[in-house]
Amino acid sequence: MNAIDNLVTLLAKLPGLGKKSAGRMAYHILEHDASFAASLAAALAGLHSAIKHCSLCGAWTETDPCPICSDERRDGGILCVVERSQDVRVIEEAREFSGRFHVLGGLISPLDGINPGDLSIGKLLYRVKNEGIREVILALNPTVEGDTTALYLSKQLSESGITVSRLASGLPVGGDLEYTDRLTLARSFRGRVSM
Amino acid sequence: MNAIDNLVTLLAKLPGLGKKSAGRMAYHILEHDASFAASLAAALAGLHSAIKHCSLCGAWTETDPCPICSDERRDGGILCVVERSQDVRVIEEAREFSGRFHVLGGLISPLDGINPGDLSIGKLLYRVKNEGIREVILALNPTVEGDTTALYLSKQLSESGITVSRLASGLPVGGDLEYTDRLTLARSFRGRVSM
Repeated sequence: MNAIDNLVTLLAKLPGLGKKSAGRMAYHILEHDASFAASLAAALAGLHSAIKHCSLCGAWTETDPCPICSDERRDGGILCVVERSQDVRVIEEAREFSGRFHVLGGLISPLDGINPGDLSIGKLLYRVKNEGIREVILALNPTVEGDTTALYLSKQLSESGITVSRLASGLPVGGDLEYTDRLTLARSFRGRVSM
Repeated sequence: MNAIDNLVTLLAKLPGLGKKSAGRMAYHILEHDASFAASLAAALAGLHSAIKHCSLCGAWTETDPCPICSDERRDGGILCVVERSQDVRVIEEAREFSGRFHVLGGLISPLDGINPGDLSIGKLLYRVKNEGIREVILALNPTVEGDTTALYLSKQLSESGITVSRLASGLPVGGDLEYTDRLTLARSFRGRVSM
């Protein structure tokens, strides 16, 4: 296999990339100067050694504890529970939440063999008990697995007496009623907000 | 900038990738074992030193002349003229053409400041004259630039007395009349084939 084919094969393994897009990228890289390819190569080669899990929240980080867990200005009494580390980034970009995070590492999905024991739930309960948490916001995807996990967690947390909430589900901002699916529309009715 | 952000920024410079897809890829790479990241890094780092232009056809290659130019079983009398090196790959995958290639390195586009002198046209005329070429197939995109370049080349080649043809333009296989644009439909009428 030649150098281009090899690169195309590797790139095509990335999510959302088919063979065509991978080919376009490989030629793009080839047509630009070698320094870009070199920087990308260095970024990839150093990635796994630079990044580890935060020992507190479980998110990917370069420093342990991560910048969010070690930021004293953030509200340590509110915990936002997310499925994956990248959800932390998405929520941080929205600049709406100023508490701390807890990464579950997945969602309960018996069909895929993922049970509560496989997730960072014990640690969540421990944190809630020992860190003086007042509120837990479940920021899980509005899918079957997300719903199941949210239900399970709210039951587990009910004994602690803290507030447990979940992100609202409904019409996306800028969306169109006409193109909204039935389930989302139903949820937006159930979750309607008084004006 | 941390290691993930750095990788995301670099990936987002690739064609067809926005910040979101680049982020998804970076996390995908992070979640898989480091060996994949290492292979991708190595493929990128070695790319520019492994690949050069074929001194005959101008396509990217690891060996000079490229495997196609040096393949004695291919018909050296038919030359397929393409815009870019990656077009050679696309045509090779269709397994329809068994002649040799010539890469122009672009299309005539006065608005972008690309004139005939910037393309590998002199070399094409030299090859046609000295390699005993019988036919030139212009495999250029059916765009304004492709049409302009095809017209220019057919005029330049008219003196040589060889056959100059261009790829048929028309309905894509599996396409639908209803969803075909007016220009494509017009071309498919002009280029209709007797049955």
